[in-house]
Amino acid sequence: MAVDIGGTKIAGALVRSDGTLVADSRRPTPRSTDPDTVMAALDEVVDELAGTPAWSEVRRCGIGSAGPVDAAHGTVSPVNIPAWRGFPVHARVRDALARNGAHVPAVLVGDGVAMTAAEHRLGAARGHRNALCMVVSTGVGGGLVLDGRLHTGPTGNAGHIGHISVDLDGEKCPCGSRGCVEGLASGTAIARHARVADAQAAAEAARAGDADALAAFDRAGRALAAGIAATATLVEIDIVVIGGGVAAAGELLLTPLRRHLETYAALDFVRHLRVAPAALGTDAGLVGAWAAAERLIPLTTGPTA
Amino acid sequence: MAVDIGGTKIAGALVRSDGTLVADSRRPTPRSTDPDTVMAALDEVVDELAGTPAWSEVRRCGIGSAGPVDAAHGTVSPVNIPAWRGFPVHARVRDALARNGAHVPAVLVGDGVAMTAAEHRLGAARGHRNALCMVVSTGVGGGLVLDGRLHTGPTGNAGHIGHISVDLDGEKCPCGSRGCVEGLASGTAIARHARVADAQAAAEAARAGDADALAAFDRAGRALAAGIAATATLVEIDIVVIGGGVAAAGELLLTPLRRHLETYAALDFVRHLRVAPAALGTDAGLVGAWAAAERLIPLTTGPTA
Repeated sequence: MAVDIGGTKIAGALVRSDGTLVADSRRPTPRSTDPDTVMAALDEVVDELAGTPAWSEVRRCGIGSAGPVDAAHGTVSPVNIPAWRGFPVHARVRDALARNGAHVPAVLVGDGVAMTAAEHRLGAARGHRNALCMVVSTGVGGGLVLDGRLHTGPTGNAGHIGHISVDLDGEKCPCGSRGCVEGLASGTAIARHARVADAQAAAEAARAGDADALAAFDRAGRALAAGIAATATLVEIDIVVIGGGVAAAGELLLTPLRRHLETYAALDFVRHLRVAPAALGTDAGLVGAWAAAERLIPLTTGPTA
Repeated sequence: MAVDIGGTKIAGALVRSDGTLVADSRRPTPRSTDPDTVMAALDEVVDELAGTPAWSEVRRCGIGSAGPVDAAHGTVSPVNIPAWRGFPVHARVRDALARNGAHVPAVLVGDGVAMTAAEHRLGAARGHRNALCMVVSTGVGGGLVLDGRLHTGPTGNAGHIGHISVDLDGEKCPCGSRGCVEGLASGTAIARHARVADAQAAAEAARAGDADALAAFDRAGRALAAGIAATATLVEIDIVVIGGGVAAAGELLLTPLRRHLETYAALDFVRHLRVAPAALGTDAGLVGAWAAAERLIPLTTGPTA
């Protein structure tokens, strides 16, 4: 069982051991200030899945959520779900599962870690022992595979590359720091720099040769390159996988990124770093939550049928 | 058995299972351009230790070396030992051990990783499951403990915090990148910024209230804070341990560092980060090489007596 919690929708699925979805359910994320109203949508998703034939075979549950998450305490405080601040989603999902007869272990991870689990299990990072996977979208997030294992960190937030500083005297970031990768490379940052409405408009302008838009993608590629090189220098990775809405601009972003990486990834042991687009599409959140559960919850007994 | 290879001296020791040195030997690093002349000094160190009573109890060998190292291929190219470029020190040390009857496994790590192993085993990072240990000296190096394990990376260079960029438009670094932590926070950088001969002179001037010297330590503390916060944000660490000659300036460096860390380590999951001075002294390199071997070479058989 996989759960994917975002600011727009809450989704759930039953997932086979090969990563295919056998049943899925989703609800728009309620725009309520009441935590239980938001949870009611998630309860409905679980109840709907519990009515499908494969339910009796559920053995574990992965929960991926927009951040910040606190895996150590099982709580989430998603920026785009204001009703949930320190909300005990891990316990509440286990309650929902138990109410439907599934007494199975569950694990909570941030959506960057979930995306990484998906790309490592079935996508572009498959077969790599050390990888950084990133989402470049409205925000910038990520996750790490180190020494063949999903590196979540104690609170489930590891790989948070959007909020490392690559410009210590740079602009103040809403997070409190300065010069964060996200403030230079997110879709929002690119659109602002290109003086257009959004990242898609920036991509169109850049394809039409607009100098501001091209400069915006170059600046974003440079910030991403500095952040990626920092990651490689700190932990040693051999591939970086990039997905998300801004990454859909393809070579508009990847070409400057690769060029700047030649500058910032200068030491011998980081020079071989590969850059690849993400392979998984719309269900990456659900597949990621499932893959994280598969990685992080070893099964010692059979199905709880 | 521990070996510590630096630009100034080559040292070796036999180390008990509690980390105490029972025999040690050292030679000045030969200023030769001939790789074998440098190796001859290391051979002498091994031969000298082989003449001591505890030799028959040697079970494994840790080799810590100034970087860059390539643990995957067993070679080193220390910046300050120009005679060694891609020098196969792992094989040559095993030869020296075998010539003296010790057919034992050996492991090669960078000196940053070795220092980290020492601080985690016996020093200030003891008991912490996630730690960054750093040396701030002529250069800036480091190593990581993640999830309770020494994280070396495939080539043994992980934790190379001195060469992450915290100022993407900053000064060109000899490594090829720009705005590296080392270029802002090393003893050399502090002395240049303070307009004095070396880091010790900068510390004396700062203690006397010199504005340039105080600004130099503030700038170094800021760059270190940005680099440490980036590391914490990427992998989640709960303590950073700082040693090396510049760190000997104590609160001159640590006070601005902690203050700037409040800016750069802004997200909830990195706010609790502790900063501690290194606990191990002059033998940290040898103790680190031993501790790395203890961590990385599991013993399946008894002593090779």
